[in-house]
Amino acid sequence: MTDHNFYMDLALQNAKAMKGQTDPNPLVGSVIVNDNHIVGIGTHLKAGEPHAEIHAIRMAGDKAKGGTIYVTLEPCSHHGRTGPCAVAIKEAGLKRVVIATLDPNPVVAGNGVKILEEAGIEVIIGVRGEESRKMNEVFNKFIVEKKPFITLKAGTTLDGKIATHTLDSKWITSADSRQDVHQLRNEHMAILVGVNTVIEDDPELTARIPNGRNPIRIILDSSLRIPMDAKVITDKLADTWVFASQQADDEKEKALLSLGIKVFRTSGSSRVDVKEVVEILGEQLVSSVLIEGGGSIHASFLENHLVDKAVLYFAPKLIGGKDAPTFLEGAGFAKMADAVELTDTDIIKIGQDFKFIGYPRYDKGEKKQ
Amino acid sequence: MTDHNFYMDLALQNAKAMKGQTDPNPLVGSVIVNDNHIVGIGTHLKAGEPHAEIHAIRMAGDKAKGGTIYVTLEPCSHHGRTGPCAVAIKEAGLKRVVIATLDPNPVVAGNGVKILEEAGIEVIIGVRGEESRKMNEVFNKFIVEKKPFITLKAGTTLDGKIATHTLDSKWITSADSRQDVHQLRNEHMAILVGVNTVIEDDPELTARIPNGRNPIRIILDSSLRIPMDAKVITDKLADTWVFASQQADDEKEKALLSLGIKVFRTSGSSRVDVKEVVEILGEQLVSSVLIEGGGSIHASFLENHLVDKAVLYFAPKLIGGKDAPTFLEGAGFAKMADAVELTDTDIIKIGQDFKFIGYPRYDKGEKKQ
Repeated sequence: MTDHNFYMDLALQNAKAMKGQTDPNPLVGSVIVNDNHIVGIGTHLKAGEPHAEIHAIRMAGDKAKGGTIYVTLEPCSHHGRTGPCAVAIKEAGLKRVVIATLDPNPVVAGNGVKILEEAGIEVIIGVRGEESRKMNEVFNKFIVEKKPFITLKAGTTLDGKIATHTLDSKWITSADSRQDVHQLRNEHMAILVGVNTVIEDDPELTARIPNGRNPIRIILDSSLRIPMDAKVITDKLADTWVFASQQADDEKEKALLSLGIKVFRTSGSSRVDVKEVVEILGEQLVSSVLIEGGGSIHASFLENHLVDKAVLYFAPKLIGGKDAPTFLEGAGFAKMADAVELTDTDIIKIGQDFKFIGYPRYDKGEKKQ
Repeated sequence: MTDHNFYMDLALQNAKAMKGQTDPNPLVGSVIVNDNHIVGIGTHLKAGEPHAEIHAIRMAGDKAKGGTIYVTLEPCSHHGRTGPCAVAIKEAGLKRVVIATLDPNPVVAGNGVKILEEAGIEVIIGVRGEESRKMNEVFNKFIVEKKPFITLKAGTTLDGKIATHTLDSKWITSADSRQDVHQLRNEHMAILVGVNTVIEDDPELTARIPNGRNPIRIILDSSLRIPMDAKVITDKLADTWVFASQQADDEKEKALLSLGIKVFRTSGSSRVDVKEVVEILGEQLVSSVLIEGGGSIHASFLENHLVDKAVLYFAPKLIGGKDAPTFLEGAGFAKMADAVELTDTDIIKIGQDFKFIGYPRYDKGEKKQ
């Protein structure tokens, strides 16, 4: 009855299985245990439907009374469609609540725990907290900051190159990694590239997996140089949004609009300010963005401290070349002490490649949440 | 009695424990098993002393008779200081020999096995072969090609940079990785850098570990631009060899010679040919070289297919910069299809860094041995 990790793990598994179907709500799972038996499980299936705790309480019925409920996220305190879960837990007669993480949603933010504790229910917080937090990293940022969670993705040789000096880039990573990228795209609301990537590679930027959901395609294009016959303009496989500066040609904008392309003019006279782009995307309720380069786009976002996560696919190849482009260009930092460090790093093998995941830490004093 | 892996593993452990003390001989371990008991163990301790099998046979005494001997390398067939081990095995009455790898030494090369089989002894080859081969990768190359085994080492940011655009490089990797590099240096006979590294960083290029053995310091310096007050010239901590071209200044050469520095003139009029350097090092009986950059030196060796192994320390940092140097520069390959692929790759965490090991494969049809 005291193996909190075992039961929370089951709750996490049920939560994660709903990945992609709960937006804009977070993933949440729940397990009820009474007298050493699991008497109920629940998960949040879909926005507008009951929360995980409600499903678990319904399944447990009378057996909830006197039991312990495990829930991956703090039970809510606000009156949504299914009432505050904290109140439902109290009414079901549960005597203990084990929570992975507090709800970052300012509407809840500790109020759920308060209701429970005032009802005399024992509350334990932090079991598998890090795992639960990561599972909802996009939600956690968007609900607080109203800005998208931004992931920088690159497929690179071991020496950091994303193409040869002649700009040949097919292929750097293996088919396994490229398949994984399609999965990544499927999990993001939008994908962002610079116009040079469109001009050089003419990519589709779609999620080519079964039942894949294509992200919105966002092109940063200060002067509206995008070719009218680019796939992202003509193929209608997904929405395409173009961000331009004030100096961009009005006629080109009209032509794009007539094809159903959204055009956003940012305030800069000749350049698109990436900070403004991120703010606009937040206003447009875009909660997650996958940035797929090239190197100067990556540098703009990183130098402005806008990258929340980096996913790098290293192919076990060496290409060399003083003039071959790397996945991080721009001016770069002048001192090694100013380099952006990544924390919570992990590396796994995907086919013959290595997939690196890390979280940039801009505040050197404290770990970025 | 049939768990070949268990006994060969013990033999490998005893062989590896002698790392650094058997040069120019390979590491070899041996175990004798009779009636399910280990009756003898042996290892090659030092060149000029008995081979591993002889130690094991002596320990086993009469109990060798009818037993099985495990040996990480094919028993020798030639008359060295302790006579051919294959003959000693026959005379000890062993009935079975389990070998990890055949001896690449052309003097042995299957002759040991032949002697054994002709004596009616059962021979099994290939148990833990890959591990034994890697353990002696330097020896295996040198004994056949009479050229050094060359390892390219770099400490890099995730984006492939070895310095910022202002050439600040302190520090990229963590103290743990730098400690590991000192261990690497200790295991190599020589360390090689370009003169620019000496001019920019003035490194000592020594193995700063307890009882560390300092490698010979090799500097490629076509025009003899090396500062006379560089640490590698003045500190006397290890030998320093400088490779220059024909056009280099004779007076500078004399000045270097007077300080005990060796100077090799290669045949090129204005540039040092790295292939010639490798040949000269082989003639000088240098069996292993660690190349520590910079990026153009690395490119020269890689483009000439001279790198046998790559050891890359990735710091979880991003520095950016179109003009920041990467660890692999030069012209670079023009097509991704021409990129050098690495096989037998492995990646491990060292402190907060990741250490990558891989073996360049120049012959795309077949795995490099």
